[in-house]
Amino acid sequence: MKSTLIKNGTVVTASDEYVGDILIEDGKISMIGRNLDVKADTVVDASGKYVMPGGVDQHTHFLFRMDDSRCVGWESSSAAVCGGTTTIVDFVNQEIGKSLKQSVDNYVRDEIGDQACCDYAFHTVVYDPTPELFEEIRHLGDPDYGIPTMKLFMAYKGQPYHMEDGAVLKALQEAKKVGVTIMVHAESAEMIATLQQQTMDAGITGPYGHAVSRPPIVEEEAVKRAAYLAELADAPIYIVHVTAKGAMEAIRDSYAKGVRIFGETCTHYLTVTTDVLKSTSPENGEFEGAKYVCSPALRSQEHLDALWEAVKKGWLNAVSSDHCAFNFETHKKRGLGDFRKIPNGCAGVENRMQMVWTYGVETGKISKQQFVELCCTNPAKINGIYPQKGTLAPGSDADILIYDPAGDYTITKATSHHKTDYEPFEGRAVKGRPAQVYLRGKLVVENSRYLGTEGEGEFVPGKPYGLAYQK
Amino acid sequence: MKSTLIKNGTVVTASDEYVGDILIEDGKISMIGRNLDVKADTVVDASGKYVMPGGVDQHTHFLFRMDDSRCVGWESSSAAVCGGTTTIVDFVNQEIGKSLKQSVDNYVRDEIGDQACCDYAFHTVVYDPTPELFEEIRHLGDPDYGIPTMKLFMAYKGQPYHMEDGAVLKALQEAKKVGVTIMVHAESAEMIATLQQQTMDAGITGPYGHAVSRPPIVEEEAVKRAAYLAELADAPIYIVHVTAKGAMEAIRDSYAKGVRIFGETCTHYLTVTTDVLKSTSPENGEFEGAKYVCSPALRSQEHLDALWEAVKKGWLNAVSSDHCAFNFETHKKRGLGDFRKIPNGCAGVENRMQMVWTYGVETGKISKQQFVELCCTNPAKINGIYPQKGTLAPGSDADILIYDPAGDYTITKATSHHKTDYEPFEGRAVKGRPAQVYLRGKLVVENSRYLGTEGEGEFVPGKPYGLAYQK
Amino acid sequence: MKSTLIKNGTVVTASDEYVGDILIEDGKISMIGRNLDVKADTVVDASGKYVMPGGVDQHTHFLFRMDDSRCVGWESSSAAVCGGTTTIVDFVNQEIGKSLKQSVDNYVRDEIGDQACCDYAFHTVVYDPTPELFEEIRHLGDPDYGIPTMKLFMAYKGQPYHMEDGAVLKALQEAKKVGVTIMVHAESAEMIATLQQQTMDAGITGPYGHAVSRPPIVEEEAVKRAAYLAELADAPIYIVHVTAKGAMEAIRDSYAKGVRIFGETCTHYLTVTTDVLKSTSPENGEFEGAKYVCSPALRSQEHLDALWEAVKKGWLNAVSSDHCAFNFETHKKRGLGDFRKIPNGCAGVENRMQMVWTYGVETGKISKQQFVELCCTNPAKINGIYPQKGTLAPGSDADILIYDPAGDYTITKATSHHKTDYEPFEGRAVKGRPAQVYLRGKLVVENSRYLGTEGEGEFVPGKPYGLAYQK
Amino acid sequence: MKSTLIKNGTVVTASDEYVGDILIEDGKISMIGRNLDVKADTVVDASGKYVMPGGVDQHTHFLFRMDDSRCVGWESSSAAVCGGTTTIVDFVNQEIGKSLKQSVDNYVRDEIGDQACCDYAFHTVVYDPTPELFEEIRHLGDPDYGIPTMKLFMAYKGQPYHMEDGAVLKALQEAKKVGVTIMVHAESAEMIATLQQQTMDAGITGPYGHAVSRPPIVEEEAVKRAAYLAELADAPIYIVHVTAKGAMEAIRDSYAKGVRIFGETCTHYLTVTTDVLKSTSPENGEFEGAKYVCSPALRSQEHLDALWEAVKKGWLNAVSSDHCAFNFETHKKRGLGDFRKIPNGCAGVENRMQMVWTYGVETGKISKQQFVELCCTNPAKINGIYPQKGTLAPGSDADILIYDPAGDYTITKATSHHKTDYEPFEGRAVKGRPAQVYLRGKLVVENSRYLGTEGEGEFVPGKPYGLAYQK
Repeated sequence: MKSTLIKNGTVVTASDEYVGDILIEDGKISMIGRNLDVKADTVVDASGKYVMPGGVDQHTHFLFRMDDSRCVGWESSSAAVCGGTTTIVDFVNQEIGKSLKQSVDNYVRDEIGDQACCDYAFHTVVYDPTPELFEEIRHLGDPDYGIPTMKLFMAYKGQPYHMEDGAVLKALQEAKKVGVTIMVHAESAEMIATLQQQTMDAGITGPYGHAVSRPPIVEEEAVKRAAYLAELADAPIYIVHVTAKGAMEAIRDSYAKGVRIFGETCTHYLTVTTDVLKSTSPENGEFEGAKYVCSPALRSQEHLDALWEAVKKGWLNAVSSDHCAFNFETHKKRGLGDFRKIPNGCAGVENRMQMVWTYGVETGKISKQQFVELCCTNPAKINGIYPQKGTLAPGSDADILIYDPAGDYTITKATSHHKTDYEPFEGRAVKGRPAQVYLRGKLVVENSRYLGTEGEGEFVPGKPYGLAYQK
Repeated sequence: MKSTLIKNGTVVTASDEYVGDILIEDGKISMIGRNLDVKADTVVDASGKYVMPGGVDQHTHFLFRMDDSRCVGWESSSAAVCGGTTTIVDFVNQEIGKSLKQSVDNYVRDEIGDQACCDYAFHTVVYDPTPELFEEIRHLGDPDYGIPTMKLFMAYKGQPYHMEDGAVLKALQEAKKVGVTIMVHAESAEMIATLQQQTMDAGITGPYGHAVSRPPIVEEEAVKRAAYLAELADAPIYIVHVTAKGAMEAIRDSYAKGVRIFGETCTHYLTVTTDVLKSTSPENGEFEGAKYVCSPALRSQEHLDALWEAVKKGWLNAVSSDHCAFNFETHKKRGLGDFRKIPNGCAGVENRMQMVWTYGVETGKISKQQFVELCCTNPAKINGIYPQKGTLAPGSDADILIYDPAGDYTITKATSHHKTDYEPFEGRAVKGRPAQVYLRGKLVVENSRYLGTEGEGEFVPGKPYGLAYQK
Repeated sequence: MKSTLIKNGTVVTASDEYVGDILIEDGKISMIGRNLDVKADTVVDASGKYVMPGGVDQHTHFLFRMDDSRCVGWESSSAAVCGGTTTIVDFVNQEIGKSLKQSVDNYVRDEIGDQACCDYAFHTVVYDPTPELFEEIRHLGDPDYGIPTMKLFMAYKGQPYHMEDGAVLKALQEAKKVGVTIMVHAESAEMIATLQQQTMDAGITGPYGHAVSRPPIVEEEAVKRAAYLAELADAPIYIVHVTAKGAMEAIRDSYAKGVRIFGETCTHYLTVTTDVLKSTSPENGEFEGAKYVCSPALRSQEHLDALWEAVKKGWLNAVSSDHCAFNFETHKKRGLGDFRKIPNGCAGVENRMQMVWTYGVETGKISKQQFVELCCTNPAKINGIYPQKGTLAPGSDADILIYDPAGDYTITKATSHHKTDYEPFEGRAVKGRPAQVYLRGKLVVENSRYLGTEGEGEFVPGKPYGLAYQK
Repeated sequence: MKSTLIKNGTVVTASDEYVGDILIEDGKISMIGRNLDVKADTVVDASGKYVMPGGVDQHTHFLFRMDDSRCVGWESSSAAVCGGTTTIVDFVNQEIGKSLKQSVDNYVRDEIGDQACCDYAFHTVVYDPTPELFEEIRHLGDPDYGIPTMKLFMAYKGQPYHMEDGAVLKALQEAKKVGVTIMVHAESAEMIATLQQQTMDAGITGPYGHAVSRPPIVEEEAVKRAAYLAELADAPIYIVHVTAKGAMEAIRDSYAKGVRIFGETCTHYLTVTTDVLKSTSPENGEFEGAKYVCSPALRSQEHLDALWEAVKKGWLNAVSSDHCAFNFETHKKRGLGDFRKIPNGCAGVENRMQMVWTYGVETGKISKQQFVELCCTNPAKINGIYPQKGTLAPGSDADILIYDPAGDYTITKATSHHKTDYEPFEGRAVKGRPAQVYLRGKLVVENSRYLGTEGEGEFVPGKPYGLAYQK
């Protein structure tokens, strides 16, 4: 494999920042230095640019079904690398009646096939909490599984994937024996079901009803409950997509009291307020807001401010996309007249790095090192794929993002790789963009253009005892 | 009706203390003064004694069934007055398929009949959360119902009376419209069910398994959840039988943040530690501990200390008995070999005032005024039966306890009126005892001997908008 | 002495409320009842009115000097009874070089003389922290002293009465041995001195500079420091005139952690915002605001709301006037051009009960019982003059306020008894007013007109171990 | 200058860990890689060893005087490098009547001379808070000063360096304008002075009296006060040598509320309990404890546990030595019979890295990355000398510690370089030791033997706006 020398960039890691050169050989970083006097097949000048690890997006749904609706899948995985994210950690839902292992195998065969444009690790998601399932937890972290994380849904009353607290407790008890990290979608299924019915009864049937029926307290309560479950099990727990100030504070305060509870937030929860759910447009009327229906619901500015404080101060330790690419016409419109039927989720894997850079780094809310920590290093550590992924160090995979901070860029469907029929961040101006992206040493993106080959993405097995066990 | 003059006692109310005389006419307090120069049919010298309102015990189960087991009922209601408690607020369980009103009517007819020795008000308890039930909440506080409180069980997974959070939420929403106070038994049904199975699987089948499977956190979590439900509904909520330090602190802290959450604790949670569940005896072996099986479970000394601090500082506002008089032989023994089958509950209505006086007032943990507030005045206010009950004021019912603080007294089955085959506080030495107890002006107890007549107890209708709505 | 029967009023105490009659004999309450059939020299119909204990105002300065300025003194003490306050607890400043005892004796002789229109107890105030002073603390609670409270100023750098933390600590250590309650004026002397100079340097020399240089944090810091001093000494401490939300929360939270810290707030901190310091008037220009210069400074609405919550929930346990009657022309104007020279303090003893009733009870913020507790009973308990003062009970002094809730009343200099040249609450409409006020059984006020005799007010000796020792 | 290649070590930085090689050229790190195929004058095999940045000890007193007592000075600075610390940040006390600049110049000339064995930066310490001093703060961060930190003593009543709160406030206000970080020694001068006298009066005159008169609360109070001062000034503040659980929690909780407050702890506060102050020895009797007299005082195990949790969770962000090398015979013995006269301070610069490694990393309390962060990277960032110091990155100074984790080592005076007559950690077994230490590329220590040259240590100018301004 050919070697590449990236010269004179400002190298940024989770703790450091310096001007230097990076040599890539055999798909790995082989050398980092100042004014490296070595030969390489290709030399790239990164002067004036930031050289950072390729992003790790630990929360994507490249397949998600709600009833018979199904989001855009792996055919759009080039969007990840085009946005500077070289590895995703994708959720694989257990098939009812099947083991996690079978479910993953089927997923790889049927859904990914030869379409992967980025590397990927997995989380499993419980749908069928049989005794065998709890047995299987013990093997998730084994080298031949390599999936040391498992998610349970506390939300979604009435759905098969809704899990009672007892199941979460048992999962935690089993998982801690082998260093598997339990993740939960923390919203109160009971509160939501009651509020949804009341919201519909009150005649609020459009997209904003989604927010009305999922106020911040439904998340805060469930997060606090998750903390108690983790405390009882004496096990770490990870809260996905934290959106509410109170939920974040529950994590922060429970952690301060000794509970090993951690959490992430997502791009849109940091950058979009709940007002968009009230959007109207000439073509879609007030249903326009359906484009922003995701769970938990988007929040008010007060919450956004709190989340930025949280990622700055380390109270939340990662930013994910929660990419779940539903189309407006074929998917979202199923919820016309009943917001409960609007599929929950939006595309976003392509925009995460640019949005966090723009609204976090450029505004001074977080440092560049924190950017790398939140978007690359911590997600890799949490999922046990560090130091192969998530950092710039000799021996690590040469997944590299060269970010050009100059020049304006506007997110728009025309230039998107999401393959959906709308863009949630449509029209948002961002600062800078990926100049080059390398996946295991191969140039796959240049100036936002995809140069890679479908199917070259590889599975990255994770090791157990991730960050949550160490902090 | 004959008049009675109680002279020279130290009168104690929730805020005052002075030496004075009290005149009773027509079953009411007609006059309070210093050296009253009036005539009366009977004159009682209360020198050296405390003259206080008759106790109000707001948490009794004079009927409770677990499966086919049933506790000792109203035939033992003289125990209340013998202990200085002139009014109880008894729980009436909804009959499945019936309205609350029908359930109460049946209860009065079938269970109380002409046996009542003390006055009584009611709480309803939900077993069948139909739409009609939620409708009926609106009438609970009506004058012809007079039952402005309703309890829901968050605990007891698998039992008909276990209520999901959604039902609690809806009850709160309805109740606040009419000033009805919702009460909850707050323990995590899910955590307990999981721990019970695991405790049994671990071979811990005896009474101590009850405590093992109900650690403090199961209560703390549910209390916190109840606080969130109350916050969401913007309604007051009342937590019955608070036992755990963390649960108490959750109430205190949520209240400080603006949630209208309140709670009581009970005699045994203040005075008996969890160690008794490990008791052995020659006749019963390690099953002796079954005598102390109640829910929530008894706690360690740290929790007792916290509860005393809480009642002193006003973080909990009442002390109840949670009287539920199961026998050892016929009831408790059903749980031989499986602690889950031991009926939950113990007698205690007779001992509340003496125990709280002895371990609270005599030790200096609380003042005499606080004693009256916790055991008489607040329970009356909470349940809307104040000022008819719960205080010493002109116009109030002449329910009076003359407490003789001198002399030792030992609680024992021989002198108990509980009509059970064992006493939970057996052998406990207490300070002082009721010298006289008056029920609506009639002397019903003298030196712990019952002088009253079965059936003279009367229903006391409660008014809505009790304490929880004022604080 | 003649007897008086007050009939058919709604009697309100700190815990009770009922319709009843009160008989006064020999200056004491001798009887309370329903439809009392007794003879009396005078019979007063209190139908439709509230019969409450005469107010106890535990924070007045009927003499205060700042440099050579001196507030209006005891010649205006009829203002207290005209407002329904029958007992004040006045601050007596130690004369430098003299004992507290001497200082009190001189004060009584020189300042009170035969002018007292209300009963009075005392707090001492330290000016000269000699070893002898700390010795003398041990005698304050003795029957022949009867002054079981002592105040120290943490504020006022450079003044003789400013006390260092070490002096506060030593006072606490001595006081707890004999049940004397230490009170502190808690503001950071250091912060204020620095900010005052900076405020002047910034050209802000008018009355609003007073608020600028005394932001809420100067109070919060000192309150927290006081809590630490009390914790170290293991002694109770009482914070006078709490005004800031953060200060109140520091008290609440330190108390919850076990520190015996308590506090009061004052009428004006509950009812007037800091905006008045910016007042202008044709005659006084922007110096008009000097009328509202007191320490701590008045606060914004957020703080007022927090203080109301605090008195409702028991986090602060009394409302005082901090009466300190400076005139505008002769006193306040000394601060023209330098806000630091404006004497700190305002009249207010006459308005306390009406203002708290109007803005607290009539708005539903507090109950009538809480009104009595805050304005009468708790101040009496705190200062060891209960049950002689502060309640309506047989044997207590017949200090009685019959409050007529009907009719509007406007506070204005024309009808004031403060004898100052302006009224801080000028123009404020209040609800109701004192119909009659009795001082030890004697009618001294009728429809706000003073009917009493100067000099009839008596000293009320206090007993040690007040409220702070019981909670 | 000769080049050095360190091969096959496990490289550890604040965020990363990997096996790699490091090339040193011209005193700088020029290259980091895997299996570097480059030539070097010297090749060192670091297999099985950890290659880490040289330590940065941000809290040393290589000169401290108490009255006429003076600690061991720069003649012992080889102790730093022998312990793996290549840079110290030393406190330079202002000379009264002189500017900071003059004081530093004198210090460099008179105290350091040509003795420095390690690189050094400075903190200034205020002794004379004149208006000129506050002016001078604005220049501290200038390139030609290079001292962007300043400490004030809140403790030590009666000493010239004791600063009142007003001075701290003014320093904060000035410092924030130019990014200078204010540090405080936070103990209540007032509490301590009072307790010291009382402790002496109680006949406790020996070393343990030091702890008796400085309980944890004296620190907690002052830390909280410092937080309020920082909040008022809206400036960052740094608390040196945090020792008490409550003090740490005050930092953590104030930071969570938005105050920019940060702190460090020290080696001995993490590893030695207060019990040593009661030590006795045949030669010194109970005065043996004087060896451990430092301020704040050593704490009980509960506090040590809390401090370890704090450094693990990021609530404190550095570990320093507070090296202040008093001798026992010539210095400590001045306090015979009066603990107040025992000079406060102990040697420790040599032991910091080994002690934290042994008791932190080897026990699993912190990760190796956290070790580097706490002992190297954060201190460099806080003091504005990063990335020149504190990390391993191309372009950084080649200050490198090769730590050999194998083999036992016991701290003892015989092998110490502190040049004092006793060792505080005498007899403590530690895990591993510095195999090699490089100072700007030069080997200065091998197997704990000093190979360097006195005077080769250089001043490292710091830049303003350190870590405290960024978090």
